Amino acid sequence: MSQPHNLSQCAPTMQALRSALLVISGKWKLQIIVALSTGTRHFRGLERTVPGISTKVLAKELKDLEAHQFIARTVHPGPPVVVEYHVLPYARTLDPVIEVLRAWGTQHQQRLEAGNAVSV
Amino acid sequence: MSQPHNLSQCAPTMQALRSALLVISGKWKLQIIVALSTGTRHFRGLERTVPGISTKVLAKELKDLEAHQFIARTVHPGPPVVVEYHVLPYARTLDPVIEVLRAWGTQHQQRLEAGNAVSV
Repeated sequence: MSQPHNLSQCAPTMQALRSALLVISGKWKLQIIVALSTGTRHFRGLERTVPGISTKVLAKELKDLEAHQFIARTVHPGPPVVVEYHVLPYARTLDPVIEVLRAWGTQHQQRLEAGNAVSV
Repeated sequence: MSQPHNLSQCAPTMQALRSALLVISGKWKLQIIVALSTGTRHFRGLERTVPGISTKVLAKELKDLEAHQFIARTVHPGPPVVVEYHVLPYARTLDPVIEVLRAWGTQHQQRLEAGNAVSV
């Protein structure tokens, strides 16, 4: 097990976890990165690919992802002006995070379907 | 790379990610689980171990974690009444998630310190 067994070992883990969660926590950022991993997309295309996200929240999340250098924005002067988003190499460092969350989410869904847990 | 390369492959990944993020997203849940991985704790002890969390948010997060069967609460009738929390086996299934986030957070901190990215 990789878990710390006493409090002094626990502090650096908490600190590193906080650094990660500060940047990628929330329901949307990793979903947006997965949506962009299939290719460059327009704002509206992203909105359709990430079900349930509002226009306002998507705009904010894209700005955050840009600020952290996970994605970049290209503006093609029009008319009509077209704004496209694509992932940058730093987003690929999140592949193992996305993979482990995908795997955990899959088994969690199976657990809920098997009735072993309440769906809250 | 484990990332999907077209949209039809992307949908199940997004669905599984959503299932995971619905349960463990946010800044606090994984930190609380790490804090409890070192042993049973009282509410106040947890509050000290998870820096920056408010009493109200900690109470809410503990209720969510209990509802999802990650932790359990034991009430020792007093006086004084003592309420303790401990992790349940289902929380251990999050070990790989915590480990990958810890590793990513560590390299992200190093990147910020090296000045390769803006700290937002």
